[in-house]
Amino acid sequence: MNTIHPTAIVSPTAQFGSGCNIGPYTVVHGNVRLGDNVTIGPFCEIGIPTLLGDGSPLAIGDNALIRSHSVLYESSSLGRNLVTGHHVAIRELTRGGDGLQVGSASDIQGHCEIGDYVRTHRGVHIGQKSKIGNFVWLFPDVLLTNDPNPPCDDTIGPVIGDFTVVASKSTLLPGVRIGAHVFISAQSLVSCDVPDHKMVSGIPAKIMGDASMLRMKNDVRVKAYPWHKRFFRGYPEEIVCRWREEP
Amino acid sequence: MNTIHPTAIVSPTAQFGSGCNIGPYTVVHGNVRLGDNVTIGPFCEIGIPTLLGDGSPLAIGDNALIRSHSVLYESSSLGRNLVTGHHVAIRELTRGGDGLQVGSASDIQGHCEIGDYVRTHRGVHIGQKSKIGNFVWLFPDVLLTNDPNPPCDDTIGPVIGDFTVVASKSTLLPGVRIGAHVFISAQSLVSCDVPDHKMVSGIPAKIMGDASMLRMKNDVRVKAYPWHKRFFRGYPEEIVCRWREEP
Amino acid sequence: MNTIHPTAIVSPTAQFGSGCNIGPYTVVHGNVRLGDNVTIGPFCEIGIPTLLGDGSPLAIGDNALIRSHSVLYESSSLGRNLVTGHHVAIRELTRGGDGLQVGSASDIQGHCEIGDYVRTHRGVHIGQKSKIGNFVWLFPDVLLTNDPNPPCDDTIGPVIGDFTVVASKSTLLPGVRIGAHVFISAQSLVSCDVPDHKMVSGIPAKIMGDASMLRMKNDVRVKAYPWHKRFFRGYPEEIVCRWREEP
Repeated sequence: MNTIHPTAIVSPTAQFGSGCNIGPYTVVHGNVRLGDNVTIGPFCEIGIPTLLGDGSPLAIGDNALIRSHSVLYESSSLGRNLVTGHHVAIRELTRGGDGLQVGSASDIQGHCEIGDYVRTHRGVHIGQKSKIGNFVWLFPDVLLTNDPNPPCDDTIGPVIGDFTVVASKSTLLPGVRIGAHVFISAQSLVSCDVPDHKMVSGIPAKIMGDASMLRMKNDVRVKAYPWHKRFFRGYPEEIVCRWREEP
Repeated sequence: MNTIHPTAIVSPTAQFGSGCNIGPYTVVHGNVRLGDNVTIGPFCEIGIPTLLGDGSPLAIGDNALIRSHSVLYESSSLGRNLVTGHHVAIRELTRGGDGLQVGSASDIQGHCEIGDYVRTHRGVHIGQKSKIGNFVWLFPDVLLTNDPNPPCDDTIGPVIGDFTVVASKSTLLPGVRIGAHVFISAQSLVSCDVPDHKMVSGIPAKIMGDASMLRMKNDVRVKAYPWHKRFFRGYPEEIVCRWREEP
Repeated sequence: MNTIHPTAIVSPTAQFGSGCNIGPYTVVHGNVRLGDNVTIGPFCEIGIPTLLGDGSPLAIGDNALIRSHSVLYESSSLGRNLVTGHHVAIRELTRGGDGLQVGSASDIQGHCEIGDYVRTHRGVHIGQKSKIGNFVWLFPDVLLTNDPNPPCDDTIGPVIGDFTVVASKSTLLPGVRIGAHVFISAQSLVSCDVPDHKMVSGIPAKIMGDASMLRMKNDVRVKAYPWHKRFFRGYPEEIVCRWREEP
């Protein structure tokens, strides 16, 4: 059974699993395929048609929670357990894995590849053609740019490896390749590639050493990175077990 | 008498003072208590239920103006004469004083304590557990962060003293304690505590001297700070009188 | 013929050309004058009344596309072929030329003069009293400030010359005068005037040389600036012809 608010405008061709909940005044277009237990708040526009897509539907996996005033275009595919904040925009031709969380007022501009369990905080902007690995964190106001000669047509997004953390208000310049387990400190401007496990900081960002040098602010005996050895909230048990069993 | 647009969806358990005005398509949930003369624009969601609250209502004082597309959660309490811009989000368990102004596209993430007559411009992000004094100004795109070891669970917000001004696009790192009457210049990254009356600048921000050194750009005979000796727009007469009588 | 969704709330005094399309749940106030072929998405508020205007209508030229959740105030005038993203705000007493494009979550705060074919990306904030020439580009999260002594009443916006490019996350301080054909690199803080054709960078921004020194990242034989010698997408043919015929 699905619960569709009487004021929601839902196309008869939109496909729903079971247990879905569509909030007041939300518009669901026809080229949409929702999994089970998808909850969509009020004032959303879901599956916006676009000539820039490939004809495929907006596909959203089971258990998604999409908060109010968000817009998602057709021709994108998002995995299970999606969570968005309010006022979010996700354009066409983006593939997001399971467990994607997109903070309020964030904007994913399309043609992106995003792995599993990526979490963005508030106000993050992911430019077109960005490639983001698994378990990546993007903190508030992080910006992924894609235009190497603004303005030009040969856009190229950043590439971010697994488990990397980009702290608040940092900017990644077009095409930079950030390795895995990297830590980028707040308000950095990353203009060069960064190898795995490094920590970078500054404008322009420079390599300051290994991220594993960083200690917990409230307990210097504990290494802060790699973070997945100490932080497990919200990840599936089987993944956390795997992390704990790593050497 | 209250004026509720026929398309607004208002819970019968929401409590209203008199002279309230609810705009088209706005949703008002049940755990809401509005004062007198509260005006809410279209497309707002007011009193969003959350398991993260404490059961208390969203309480909004007299004479509030909440502009369109804003969302406010239950279990927060905001004083008299609240003004918000468009596309604002305020989460649960935040206490705001009288005269709070929140600019468009700003986001207060909850568990914050905010004094009287605080004004944020556009695009300000106030992370959880921030503590902001009275008469504080946060200019566009200012960011208050709260995660000292991103990601971690022991978040700690910044603390900002009375009359302090944070200029555009500056970032306050988690737990920094900013004194009263401080001036933080634009695009600074504040990583250390700042004593009362100082002016800081840079990435990372350094103390450049006393804020009272700064002169008005258009009249160098006039000290720019403390600003409340020269700027009174929008403050109640009794407060301005008190300011004028200060030594 | 105009197509007005049955759930749209349109004032009988709003004036429409022909071929307009008003989306679901959008509110169009009375002091509005739309050209031909104007398309407005859902959840917009168009022509918001304000005591801060001059009584003139919100005038929007032919062929505009205004995406969902956007708000535009009365007493502003925008030319032909306007395009906005989602969650955009444009306040009163702003004049925009033809071909204005405003990215999602951008905010034009009113009293601005904007030339023809100006393009802002996502999250751009244009403070009151800004003056922007023709063919200007403002990339994501660019901020134009206007308060020289925050807070004060004598605000003064930046002035930007024709063809200038401001790259991502840069801030222009109040009243700076940026020439024509200038390139401001990402995350700069511009506190001084910049002559025509220069390239600036840093915090605070310094002149690094002529913008014409910059080469295309993928082909160093090609000068990146002036960009209008190599980039034509979306500009009218007659304008591109003129550019090509320039010496």
